[in-house]
Amino acid sequence: MTANPDSRAFRDALGSFATGVTIVTATDAEGRDVGLTASSFNSVSLDPPMILWSLARSSQSMAAFREAAHFAVHILAADQDPLSNRFAKSGTDKFADVPIERGEGGVPLLTGCSARFECRTAYQYEGGDHIIFVGEVTRFDRYERPPLIFHGGRYALAARKAQALSAGGAIEQPAGSFGEDFLGYLLGRAHFQLYARMQASLGAHGLDAWDHFILSVLGIGDGRSIAEIEAVIGYTGAHATPERVRSLAARGILSADPDGGRLWLTEQGRKTLVELTAAAKAAEEDALGAFDENETALLKHLLKHVIRSTDPGLPDPWLATAEQGA
Amino acid sequence: MTANPDSRAFRDALGSFATGVTIVTATDAEGRDVGLTASSFNSVSLDPPMILWSLARSSQSMAAFREAAHFAVHILAADQDPLSNRFAKSGTDKFADVPIERGEGGVPLLTGCSARFECRTAYQYEGGDHIIFVGEVTRFDRYERPPLIFHGGRYALAARKAQALSAGGAIEQPAGSFGEDFLGYLLGRAHFQLYARMQASLGAHGLDAWDHFILSVLGIGDGRSIAEIEAVIGYTGAHATPERVRSLAARGILSADPDGGRLWLTEQGRKTLVELTAAAKAAEEDALGAFDENETALLKHLLKHVIRSTDPGLPDPWLATAEQGA
Repeated sequence: MTANPDSRAFRDALGSFATGVTIVTATDAEGRDVGLTASSFNSVSLDPPMILWSLARSSQSMAAFREAAHFAVHILAADQDPLSNRFAKSGTDKFADVPIERGEGGVPLLTGCSARFECRTAYQYEGGDHIIFVGEVTRFDRYERPPLIFHGGRYALAARKAQALSAGGAIEQPAGSFGEDFLGYLLGRAHFQLYARMQASLGAHGLDAWDHFILSVLGIGDGRSIAEIEAVIGYTGAHATPERVRSLAARGILSADPDGGRLWLTEQGRKTLVELTAAAKAAEEDALGAFDENETALLKHLLKHVIRSTDPGLPDPWLATAEQGA
Repeated sequence: MTANPDSRAFRDALGSFATGVTIVTATDAEGRDVGLTASSFNSVSLDPPMILWSLARSSQSMAAFREAAHFAVHILAADQDPLSNRFAKSGTDKFADVPIERGEGGVPLLTGCSARFECRTAYQYEGGDHIIFVGEVTRFDRYERPPLIFHGGRYALAARKAQALSAGGAIEQPAGSFGEDFLGYLLGRAHFQLYARMQASLGAHGLDAWDHFILSVLGIGDGRSIAEIEAVIGYTGAHATPERVRSLAARGILSADPDGGRLWLTEQGRKTLVELTAAAKAAEEDALGAFDENETALLKHLLKHVIRSTDPGLPDPWLATAEQGA
């Protein structure tokens, strides 16, 4: 496509390049703090240490950065999209209630970033409707925080690329079969392997998975009826049958409300559930051991998308039953 | 930290900024193709349309780019890490067997990228130990391919940030309970909801989940013994009991090898499995409907990490049983 500066298509093509998100700060000639969100950052030189970013000539902050001898670039962390949004808008007091430190030349330094670079302005170059600012880095900090990413006009999170799991990816599959990239297989295997780690704890209490599901629902919110429990767990194939409920009650784990047939965890039931949940959380930690914070967040985000798109209309287990009915 | 150009720490801090990956190409004064991998790309100007990237003065390709009137920048797609690795190494014929097209000025253009920009060299600026090349974009192409990302010295994939699933994230949990961010809950709910979509197909064939697991293992590789099937599915709680196998055989879905007790899918069994797998794949498509290609790849990558870290030592279901024993 021939480049047309006004075209949405050109901006979209530029958006194909993923970047981190930065906030660049300085002080203007009157000593006021200025700052703005920029994704046009990149590294330039190691010796001397230099970075660059570019700013639209039309920016309200252009005069301040043109005259500033120092500026600071903050690489934003994955949870700093609200800060990114705030510094992307003009006309507000961007620094209100934002904790800041002071760098060389009084430059305001933000906290909670993945990295930040304090710079002396080295060059200002022509770049069409932008000015390219090249800074020599005088000080920098780095924190082990996963990065915020911008791609295709949206915020994103990143995770390392993984290797193949087994030969299943490479071998041609017989008709009616599937390979290791089949979501149903991956979800099932991950679920059952993780859940298998619970078996010892369940066995020690003489409980099985269905019992565990019933106790978990009551653990989130006590006093539900069998029908309400079924509505929450039925899609798994588990059932709160009257026999099962009677057996749990006989063992002192549940008590049933005499009038309404509602179920409550006993003190022993709550204690049992605390032990089971501790086992489940230990299994989760094992399962996520190889992940960084970002990968864990991403997996959970993506599973939520799958849960939303396959939801048969389950009640929210975390809302009180009274609210659901209202 | 005070900037020290030789320090690993400075490079690590720069690596906190995530970027896409590009390959920049041109032809040298003798008409030979040159190209290299660079993450130092960024957009500069919309009107005129301009981009920039920087190159180490020490690069073998410096002379070629210094003299080139035209160059092209290719934004690499998620599956192009092998191409990125190839163009990052010097001393090999980088273009051998790589399909290329020709752009303005004879510049070699690579295929399979997310986007590419053909440029006229507009400026070359000093940038410490690098030269900053600013190109005016004369033509560009964009393809709907997810991007390859580079962060912290490694390749990565990206996915959009997601919203909260339910009230569970915000409400304080009682002791022994868990919130919606608990991996066991998310995996279980995603698995059971997806699997519930199979129930109609299973019911139509008079089969249940355990039957389906047995048929699936035989679908991947026929002729396994009951013990071999158990080794693959036992962790799910499903069992290939003799009664179950007899029932499947009586219905003409399986046949048992008379001498060794090995099981084979009949023609009818294979046909049944093809229908079940079609239902499962339709459920997968529904479940992944809201995802772009990158998010799907990421979810699967992350599930493989979980499967690896929770693997009790299962045999690879896709390897022939003879190979497993060997």
